Amino acid sequence: METIRRTKIADALSSTHFGTDINVKGWVRTHRSSKVVDFIALNDGSTINNIQIVVDPTKFADELLKQITTGACIGVTGKLVESQGQGQASEIQCEDIVVYGECGSDYPMQKKGQSFEYMRQHAHLRLRTNTFGAVMRIRHNMAIAIHQYFHEHGFFYFHTPLITASDAEGAGEMFQVTTKNLYDLKKDEEGKIIYTDDFFGKMTSLTVSGQLEGELGATALGQIYTFGPTFRAENSNTPRHLAEFWMIEPEVAFIDLNDLMDLEEDFIKYCVRWALEHCKDDLEFLNKMIDKTLIARLEGVVNENFVRLSYTEGIKILEEAVAKGRKFEFPISWGADLASEHERYLVEEHFKKPVIMTDYPKEIKAFYMKLNDDGKTVQGTDVLFPQIGEIIGGSIREENYDKLVAQIEERHIPMKDMWWYLDTRRYGSCPHGGFGLGFERLILFVTGMQNIRDVIPFPRTPKSAEF
Amino acid sequence: METIRRTKIADALSSTHFGTDINVKGWVRTHRSSKVVDFIALNDGSTINNIQIVVDPTKFADELLKQITTGACIGVTGKLVESQGQGQASEIQCEDIVVYGECGSDYPMQKKGQSFEYMRQHAHLRLRTNTFGAVMRIRHNMAIAIHQYFHEHGFFYFHTPLITASDAEGAGEMFQVTTKNLYDLKKDEEGKIIYTDDFFGKMTSLTVSGQLEGELGATALGQIYTFGPTFRAENSNTPRHLAEFWMIEPEVAFIDLNDLMDLEEDFIKYCVRWALEHCKDDLEFLNKMIDKTLIARLEGVVNENFVRLSYTEGIKILEEAVAKGRKFEFPISWGADLASEHERYLVEEHFKKPVIMTDYPKEIKAFYMKLNDDGKTVQGTDVLFPQIGEIIGGSIREENYDKLVAQIEERHIPMKDMWWYLDTRRYGSCPHGGFGLGFERLILFVTGMQNIRDVIPFPRTPKSAEF
Repeated sequence: METIRRTKIADALSSTHFGTDINVKGWVRTHRSSKVVDFIALNDGSTINNIQIVVDPTKFADELLKQITTGACIGVTGKLVESQGQGQASEIQCEDIVVYGECGSDYPMQKKGQSFEYMRQHAHLRLRTNTFGAVMRIRHNMAIAIHQYFHEHGFFYFHTPLITASDAEGAGEMFQVTTKNLYDLKKDEEGKIIYTDDFFGKMTSLTVSGQLEGELGATALGQIYTFGPTFRAENSNTPRHLAEFWMIEPEVAFIDLNDLMDLEEDFIKYCVRWALEHCKDDLEFLNKMIDKTLIARLEGVVNENFVRLSYTEGIKILEEAVAKGRKFEFPISWGADLASEHERYLVEEHFKKPVIMTDYPKEIKAFYMKLNDDGKTVQGTDVLFPQIGEIIGGSIREENYDKLVAQIEERHIPMKDMWWYLDTRRYGSCPHGGFGLGFERLILFVTGMQNIRDVIPFPRTPKSAEF
Repeated sequence: METIRRTKIADALSSTHFGTDINVKGWVRTHRSSKVVDFIALNDGSTINNIQIVVDPTKFADELLKQITTGACIGVTGKLVESQGQGQASEIQCEDIVVYGECGSDYPMQKKGQSFEYMRQHAHLRLRTNTFGAVMRIRHNMAIAIHQYFHEHGFFYFHTPLITASDAEGAGEMFQVTTKNLYDLKKDEEGKIIYTDDFFGKMTSLTVSGQLEGELGATALGQIYTFGPTFRAENSNTPRHLAEFWMIEPEVAFIDLNDLMDLEEDFIKYCVRWALEHCKDDLEFLNKMIDKTLIARLEGVVNENFVRLSYTEGIKILEEAVAKGRKFEFPISWGADLASEHERYLVEEHFKKPVIMTDYPKEIKAFYMKLNDDGKTVQGTDVLFPQIGEIIGGSIREENYDKLVAQIEERHIPMKDMWWYLDTRRYGSCPHGGFGLGFERLILFVTGMQNIRDVIPFPRTPKSAEF
């Protein structure tokens, strides 16, 4: 009976070749029995929708039917017919069943409605549930949209290294990477650990950003993007932090602040539009089960023109709100970094649309951002989103060698590690800029999920590196 | 004059809008001067081809023209005209020049014909050369082809973790990842270092493969692929080894050995065909400068049907060759692992086409490969390529819980770390398989480059983590 090639359930459900025999394989979601008919809901991960298998129990051995429990893996051959029930277009009248793998009643995904915390403890099996299947298919689609966007726009995918000997921008705590024997750490006369015998001959860590190497790519290939894992060893046990996450960092030669804002807006709308067009079933499920305003919010982002305003204008609006009695947890005045509550006030309450904020005080931004003529502000540009706050952080880079070195010295960044970065300003320097997008932040926004640990297959967080 | 939007040089070269004013920006490759005319070859990374800027030196200040040296970054506005010279379709009659960044005579990429070793020491600037520009554009295209192939075929991109607490298959030496203070390592009574206070609460390393987590994805979503960095802390200073490299690992539920071989062959032909179709200029350059048989070899792979034979048949052919006087460095007989020389003999001399070899002795393959009925061989499948040897290693996985546990015990793999992997066989186990492709191996093959350090932007090798 196994001679018919398997059809994916996504294809079987959209097929109208009624009357033909097909074969499907997957995992049993539910099995309802009665004397006259059994219904098996089968899912193979290709779609959130199950196909209904209609079984005449008199044609199959009781022992076989008993093996068909939630979580079991089976193959079914039968006739594709128009569905009698609601919702589905097609179902299968079962002619043959093969059980590949049984599933006992101790199956951790047996019961519906388990908590997300419970799911995280069974992250290896939660992938088989509706919610996590939907999230992972959307995650895939967002990655594809990102590659597609940049490829179509002439960017080159550029792999920056993860193991690094330089703490580039001091953006965060780093993980040390070593092959040293920790039981026999040789030290020099001053008691410092010697790294000449470590794998790379010096102390190395996991990167916090590929931007600086990305700039090397952009100042040679014109426009590049990175898309890879990034690490922060911060002991932050929050729904917004991961120790290992994926980041996208495009970098573009010959771009100015206006074009950079256009790129940011166009890029993120492309991704959200892709989700609306390619992930309809999964989004409808999440809209129903997780967040009833999800699809409306996504459509809002696609249809709105983002507000563009300077940090200085933003502060004015916030100060006016405070004057009118709006309470914030953190005080806000010119020079201070915006907290998430301030960003969300601007986006969700004041403008009611996404905001691109620019020209921040140089003190609250990184050393590499291009100084404005006022000498006080830099050409940074953050995109602020409803629910999420900052989803993109970018800037035009300081391309003037002397000004860049001045900033490096002002901030006491170790110069020795930066020689290769400075070379881009020493030899044929060019105006350029770029931005960074935390991939999981985007997935949170597009799925409506609330905890970043639930939008990556196997989250790495303090005290947790399971699976 | 800066009001005309920049045109990429790739687009300018293929444009036939002769007579219109355009603006291009890029880095000067060469500047030849004479009394009547200056020629500037300008490149912006969008293509290997330079656009020729024709300058009337009487119209520009001498000082400006002196700034236009190899490596300098300039913008040029002028009229696009049909080229008078050979090779190029169009050139620009210069009307205005802006110098963005000068470039002194100490520019490390000044001279042509520097050694690859020299280039590696200046990896941050080698990207601006023809060879490395070509390699990086091809690398980009191969990544896009891979995502495109899997997306079109219904695979989901699945991000497996890089920081891991389990030495999955014991595939190689690992880098330790830690936030511990190495100056104050607490130990227990037996003198063992305590890891409860490390970031993840236990000892962690960088992964050597995402396959085991990939299997979790495939047994939920049906078919997935990984594409991410992978690490080996092996002290191998060879042209074939990197400490940090990118790997692609698709994993498919409900696949058998024949379908897996079909997938391997179809996938790799798709990638090579993509290169031939999308990277014509870069391949022609490399074919001319690096390897004159490159394009012919790529076309060979696309047009040939791969030979499929068992390990046992392969050994017979090799033994017959030895009997006829063919010398190999390493002896070969049934049970031994094939060396690269054996693989290349089969591919380059005996069959003269790519070979997919299957059914290896279980002793020389990993624990997770499905045991054949003979009890001696496993359903492994390696794809062997000219020049490269093994380019893909795959297998059908053992889906039977008892057989898998027997192999784990026979090989003394710590069971405790594997509970989540075994759960896939405990709950709704399904037949499945997959393969791994070292991305840089593919880039070596497609570019004709000889050293793996030259097909990744910033190679990580023993004693070297620069940039």
